[in-house]
Amino acid sequence: MKAVRIHKYHEMPKLDEVPEPEITGPWDVIVKVGAAGLCRTDLHIIEGQWDPIQNPTLPYILGHENAGWVHAVGPAVTNVEVGDTVIMHPLVTCGLCPECRRGNDSHCSNSSFPGLNAEGGMAEYMLTNARAVVKLDPKLQPRDIAALADAGLTAYHAVRKTVPKLHPGTHVVVMGSGGLGHIGIQSLLALTPAQITVVDKSEAALELAKSLGAHHTVLSTDDETVIKQVHDITGGGAHVVLDFIAEMGMELLGPQLIRNQGDYYVIGYGGMVKIETLSIISREINVIGNLVGTYEDLVQLMTLTAEGKISLHTSVYDLAAYADAINDLDNGRLVGRGILVP
Amino acid sequence: MKAVRIHKYHEMPKLDEVPEPEITGPWDVIVKVGAAGLCRTDLHIIEGQWDPIQNPTLPYILGHENAGWVHAVGPAVTNVEVGDTVIMHPLVTCGLCPECRRGNDSHCSNSSFPGLNAEGGMAEYMLTNARAVVKLDPKLQPRDIAALADAGLTAYHAVRKTVPKLHPGTHVVVMGSGGLGHIGIQSLLALTPAQITVVDKSEAALELAKSLGAHHTVLSTDDETVIKQVHDITGGGAHVVLDFIAEMGMELLGPQLIRNQGDYYVIGYGGMVKIETLSIISREINVIGNLVGTYEDLVQLMTLTAEGKISLHTSVYDLAAYADAINDLDNGRLVGRGILVP
Amino acid sequence: MKAVRIHKYHEMPKLDEVPEPEITGPWDVIVKVGAAGLCRTDLHIIEGQWDPIQNPTLPYILGHENAGWVHAVGPAVTNVEVGDTVIMHPLVTCGLCPECRRGNDSHCSNSSFPGLNAEGGMAEYMLTNARAVVKLDPKLQPRDIAALADAGLTAYHAVRKTVPKLHPGTHVVVMGSGGLGHIGIQSLLALTPAQITVVDKSEAALELAKSLGAHHTVLSTDDETVIKQVHDITGGGAHVVLDFIAEMGMELLGPQLIRNQGDYYVIGYGGMVKIETLSIISREINVIGNLVGTYEDLVQLMTLTAEGKISLHTSVYDLAAYADAINDLDNGRLVGRGILVP
Amino acid sequence: MKAVRIHKYHEMPKLDEVPEPEITGPWDVIVKVGAAGLCRTDLHIIEGQWDPIQNPTLPYILGHENAGWVHAVGPAVTNVEVGDTVIMHPLVTCGLCPECRRGNDSHCSNSSFPGLNAEGGMAEYMLTNARAVVKLDPKLQPRDIAALADAGLTAYHAVRKTVPKLHPGTHVVVMGSGGLGHIGIQSLLALTPAQITVVDKSEAALELAKSLGAHHTVLSTDDETVIKQVHDITGGGAHVVLDFIAEMGMELLGPQLIRNQGDYYVIGYGGMVKIETLSIISREINVIGNLVGTYEDLVQLMTLTAEGKISLHTSVYDLAAYADAINDLDNGRLVGRGILVP
Repeated sequence: MKAVRIHKYHEMPKLDEVPEPEITGPWDVIVKVGAAGLCRTDLHIIEGQWDPIQNPTLPYILGHENAGWVHAVGPAVTNVEVGDTVIMHPLVTCGLCPECRRGNDSHCSNSSFPGLNAEGGMAEYMLTNARAVVKLDPKLQPRDIAALADAGLTAYHAVRKTVPKLHPGTHVVVMGSGGLGHIGIQSLLALTPAQITVVDKSEAALELAKSLGAHHTVLSTDDETVIKQVHDITGGGAHVVLDFIAEMGMELLGPQLIRNQGDYYVIGYGGMVKIETLSIISREINVIGNLVGTYEDLVQLMTLTAEGKISLHTSVYDLAAYADAINDLDNGRLVGRGILVP
Repeated sequence: MKAVRIHKYHEMPKLDEVPEPEITGPWDVIVKVGAAGLCRTDLHIIEGQWDPIQNPTLPYILGHENAGWVHAVGPAVTNVEVGDTVIMHPLVTCGLCPECRRGNDSHCSNSSFPGLNAEGGMAEYMLTNARAVVKLDPKLQPRDIAALADAGLTAYHAVRKTVPKLHPGTHVVVMGSGGLGHIGIQSLLALTPAQITVVDKSEAALELAKSLGAHHTVLSTDDETVIKQVHDITGGGAHVVLDFIAEMGMELLGPQLIRNQGDYYVIGYGGMVKIETLSIISREINVIGNLVGTYEDLVQLMTLTAEGKISLHTSVYDLAAYADAINDLDNGRLVGRGILVP
Repeated sequence: MKAVRIHKYHEMPKLDEVPEPEITGPWDVIVKVGAAGLCRTDLHIIEGQWDPIQNPTLPYILGHENAGWVHAVGPAVTNVEVGDTVIMHPLVTCGLCPECRRGNDSHCSNSSFPGLNAEGGMAEYMLTNARAVVKLDPKLQPRDIAALADAGLTAYHAVRKTVPKLHPGTHVVVMGSGGLGHIGIQSLLALTPAQITVVDKSEAALELAKSLGAHHTVLSTDDETVIKQVHDITGGGAHVVLDFIAEMGMELLGPQLIRNQGDYYVIGYGGMVKIETLSIISREINVIGNLVGTYEDLVQLMTLTAEGKISLHTSVYDLAAYADAINDLDNGRLVGRGILVP
Repeated sequence: MKAVRIHKYHEMPKLDEVPEPEITGPWDVIVKVGAAGLCRTDLHIIEGQWDPIQNPTLPYILGHENAGWVHAVGPAVTNVEVGDTVIMHPLVTCGLCPECRRGNDSHCSNSSFPGLNAEGGMAEYMLTNARAVVKLDPKLQPRDIAALADAGLTAYHAVRKTVPKLHPGTHVVVMGSGGLGHIGIQSLLALTPAQITVVDKSEAALELAKSLGAHHTVLSTDDETVIKQVHDITGGGAHVVLDFIAEMGMELLGPQLIRNQGDYYVIGYGGMVKIETLSIISREINVIGNLVGTYEDLVQLMTLTAEGKISLHTSVYDLAAYADAINDLDNGRLVGRGILVP
């Protein structure tokens, strides 16, 4: 089958002909890929940033946001059947380790992460397991929802953690209204009554944010202006800041946008958080890390999607045009989320 | 009356003769000071670190950890009577602002902070209000419990926030077994079933920690050794680290002692937290700020004290010997908490 | 001034001429009443049901849902000024007892409850205190929002407690779409993504529910039919049932509408809950009591009201026509909430 | 092999010779039973009380509290090996249903419950699966800990739910210091700083409670006396009541022992809870159902056991003497928990 594989860091991946995956374990599931999302993390993988964390053996198939149709199942699989439309949780988890037993499967200690340390979904077929597949309404098209598997899941996971803090009268700031951010805004509207202020350097992104229901927008120019505008809108700083960028200085600006007792959520990455401990304690503020989401998070997100409360803005490419998609993403030409269709 | 006042930053405070405070408002309470604790924050005040945050007018009376006996009350005070033994919450709060109404009075927006931005307790008498006083068993001696008003309260407040995370089988690391840390250890033992590991550079502090019930101790030498020892004891890092120092490099070491999904609690201050966002998100870790505690926290702490579960190690000085106490604290000669008795 | 006072249980209250209230304490506030809501609890008071709980001295002025304009304030009041439009929390609380200090002021141990055990708001003026008044936008009219002070607050308080359980994909059943229920539905829509099913015996009430945004409605006929319909809609029972009636058999039906691990919220009253312990444990279900709400709840509710997310359906009567209003309520002729305007 | 099977309700079970279980699925685990606990639920099973809930096919092997050594494993089992000492969670769960995915496996929708609706552990060997076994320190003896699998787990699960409410200064009442209650007391001491008051009709049970660390005991005589004593000790009622009996009138007494906002935990069963809705709402009290615990609960309980914080009081019988054990339990002659050893 055709597959997009990374052979060497800092080089464009190649479209290779490779063998199809096969069922070997009782809980194995093989999915005919309907769509694979393209993500900034793919750029970071190519740059080698994830190598020390995930240690993959090159070459391997990229693609960690996948949806499709069940093609084959192992003998113990009872939750899906051949032909079912499914979205795939990005992690293939064990179900027996302590974190899996707590429902906290995104921290499974025996997981693989297709597209990061195992064969991913930028291919015609992909191997996953019964614990990773969420069965969908057959009317849903993989290309319309694939990017929810990771980008959407990560945004939703972070938003879900903010719910206890965001009661009526509170303010949340969304930094970056891109692939993750625009799902974050929709998730906030679905789960909380908070006032939403979106900060972005792109007028088009702010327009999208407004059309989705954001209450206020702030064009990201110099830090001082942004701080002043956000403090004016929020009455002294937000209760929660969701930073979907967290690099290029945003990670230094973000903590200045929260009020006392506020939470700065790190979701994007690339920069380094630096805060004086005197500021941390005198303001009693928190920095909250976020990594993908659980299977349960994905089920909830797909419920909201089925209810029409979440929708993705996408640009579709043929799998063979993967290099165009990567270049467009890298150069800021991609509107919405890039989707590869085999 | 006699009072220890700061006249200029970077200079030793002076013992002045000043007028006694008077009742002017309906909820005013004047307390005959029985004891005033001395705290590293007093050193930081003298160094001018708190000036930009609290903006006090010099000269003013130091002392933010106070206990004594009610001397006079305003006409609307119903919760204490003249002669009652009381400990004073460090903040004099309004009771009407949003945070006061939520029980979150340590973030009162109309508060004063005696000893930091108003006349404190290193004096014979002190003005506070009905909302700040906790009535105590008359058998308790102010000199034995005064330091719980701020040092103890801060440690207890942080520990109380850790309870939901510290179930059986979890590990907590206490960095610094000094004035705050040794109350933190006792609070952890009272509130959680977690295994406690104490890190300190002083053998004597570690001995104290063990005698209080800490399960493991690690002598703080070079970072690499501490990291290795803590990871060995905790099976890969603690679920929670309570950093009572957070300066002199501890604020960089602390985040390396937690496991994935762990919480690094900043309680001490002086340094700057620096963490790569990639580390924050790939480990999904949190940095948690902590500032004193609420009135309710203080009531709970005094309950534990009355039950014999918390006790303070103190060194008592006459009020007039305040300079000796300050010098001893600054030079590491103070064993336990320094207490000034008028 | 004119005031509606109850002189004897089981008799219609009388319109009396009584002295106006006066400022005596530092936190006192006198409000010129703009509107006083009429509530089923007023009927229960007249029937004597609340006598053993509240022990009022007859005669006294009814009216526990009040809004108006500040007429006079005591010397220590800082949060409102003469002329401010205010809604009044139903309890006049002390601010010093443990529950007040926790922000849990609806359980204040030194409170009075105007309209239940002190002079209420069915009069031209009313005495309350600084802790009971929430300042409103001057554009809001007391007659439009007075009933939120108790009916709305009670519904909102209960709904707010359900938030942690009602994630996407969950079901909530609202029993009774009347004075409280229709605020409950709007609060659920504002705070949760749950699917809402409303059960009522009135077609008109179900129409109102649908127009407010309820997802499903069930006409309350015989229990068996309701149980079957609710189980069909919810896939085996609701995660949460909010019973705004809790009498006339509803209190026996309600627990049968929840699924395993479900919560049955008692908000109305009159009947007796009866559940086999074997059913409680084998289904691991909970019965949750609810009583008015806190000051913070009222602030949040008024925020949602100002944002246009909550609106009341009312029928306005002149204060002198109180007996008509009472008779209309008792005979089911009242559409929406009855409001008395002095 | 030998096995104790129930053939007909209201009749003593029989000791039968039956075939040994065999591995058929990939996650199957066969355990050589080391000990099986005897429980009041076994009496209720014999009385037919559980038939309409669990619908077992008679005859089947009793025994739902089991521990032993792994005898054989299916091909996909990775968490235990032949020879490991294990305790068995009472439910054999699927790992794929929504509740399993949330870590809430005790509400698995595809589970079996050996001893209640499948072959249990009062036999030489028993079939379970990889998700049900908790690996133990080989020094632990099955006979010493088997009864923690259900009685202990149920008590611990309930206690764990009380933690957020039981801060310093709060009161908890334990009704019944028997097989479950004495684990409940030890769990409360390990997890909370609450004052514990134990109510029981047996002086010996109260002695045991005191020796375990209970702070107060009340001999259960007439309700009025118990209510008065408990209200005196707790200052107006407990914050939480844990009712390990919930029959023979205890289920009516229990709700009278809590203060306003208190929680009445139903853990035992047999009676019917009856509370006026007016009492539920005016006191804002809750009734909380409890059913066994999760796998994670069992892991935590075994951690406390390994730390020496929980120990069981048992009476050991040979498996063949099962009828003596049942008769002793039924007639109140059993001291501690009855354990059958094959």
